[in-house]
Amino acid sequence: MKATYREVKADILCRITKGQWAPGSLIPNEVELAESYGCARATVNRAMRELADDGLIERRRKAGTRVRASPVRQARFDIPLVRSEIEDKGAEYRYSLVSRAIDEAPGWLRARLQLGADAQALHLVCMHYANGDPFQHEDRWINLEVLPQARDADFTQTGPNEWLVATIPFSTAEISFSAALADKELADCLACEAGAPVFTIERATWFEGDANTFVRLTYRPGHRMTTRY
Amino acid sequence: MKATYREVKADILCRITKGQWAPGSLIPNEVELAESYGCARATVNRAMRELADDGLIERRRKAGTRVRASPVRQARFDIPLVRSEIEDKGAEYRYSLVSRAIDEAPGWLRARLQLGADAQALHLVCMHYANGDPFQHEDRWINLEVLPQARDADFTQTGPNEWLVATIPFSTAEISFSAALADKELADCLACEAGAPVFTIERATWFEGDANTFVRLTYRPGHRMTTRY
Repeated sequence: MKATYREVKADILCRITKGQWAPGSLIPNEVELAESYGCARATVNRAMRELADDGLIERRRKAGTRVRASPVRQARFDIPLVRSEIEDKGAEYRYSLVSRAIDEAPGWLRARLQLGADAQALHLVCMHYANGDPFQHEDRWINLEVLPQARDADFTQTGPNEWLVATIPFSTAEISFSAALADKELADCLACEAGAPVFTIERATWFEGDANTFVRLTYRPGHRMTTRY
Repeated sequence: MKATYREVKADILCRITKGQWAPGSLIPNEVELAESYGCARATVNRAMRELADDGLIERRRKAGTRVRASPVRQARFDIPLVRSEIEDKGAEYRYSLVSRAIDEAPGWLRARLQLGADAQALHLVCMHYANGDPFQHEDRWINLEVLPQARDADFTQTGPNEWLVATIPFSTAEISFSAALADKELADCLACEAGAPVFTIERATWFEGDANTFVRLTYRPGHRMTTRY
């Protein structure tokens, strides 16, 4: 029977971890490997692609494939809609709009999203609850030049994230995680003490070069974002 | 010329975002798509695999492939060695060992790593500096049943992360991000005020069912972990 890509991957992984193929060393090319494993080149290619995704090898078109000197480990995080995040825990989801305003985009937002000097933005503050307890605070800006229809959209029943998913795709996103202290306003919304440490996700998204939106999501104190890989 | 997998992927993506293939709907199978694009089935397969990785479609062996009702967006984070993280910023890396002790694994660690009642662990506290400024605090536990050689390893010059990468692979990792307040000890190490909000990564790794190590990495206040996708 021919070797499967899983077998090929496991064997290569084993050679690397045993040091038979040392960090930094060149490994045989796909044609040679396919011969030695008695399998199709596509099988070796798939194994190599996964090993590269796992950060164990580095593939260069002309220079060949090397064992990485220091493996870059990658973690993947699902970024679900908050509704799914809450409902997947078996909790009841509730949404509420705290405030809505149309403003000139403030300087930091223009800088962050590369907007023009008099860009208008819709500023929404919303809360997401799990079984009636505050779960996530959403501070959202929508670029009205790209999404003028947001002016007339009703955000009292449905959150802007769901509206955006249904309205416009994105091609590029920049996401960052950090820690902050809850200020008075956040603490009121999240029903926690001012000065509590909170986990924050910021995300900016673009579609074909135009910024759609910027959001700061702040979770209630104690929230952990976990993944296995 | 035959369609490339990128062209196939772009076309499918376009049909989804234009709503031609609606959320929740079944999409044609790979054989049909290969025919309609005039390309190999493997080409369609690769495009579909990436669209599934991007969270846009959901593939089920028997039930076929559907457009996801609510796309799960995935973010990938590189988890580099802290040395690379610092050197990649063009800063000078320095490491120092704060403390080293061999202890019975505390209850919370035994629970977290599924260790036996009298498991011994090596407990290391280390600091990583960028251009002489505190960058990351590392609070590390190593399971001495799986890695007895850690007893005699010299951690005064090289951090445990680099030692582990060179010593043992891992097959499963659990990673979580959260926010915390710096206590007095952390604040001293990170040269910040006690009570400052800090971003924390916790990671536990296993190899073939045995826990290797658990680490809590705490970054200096203001640190952001950012990725584009």
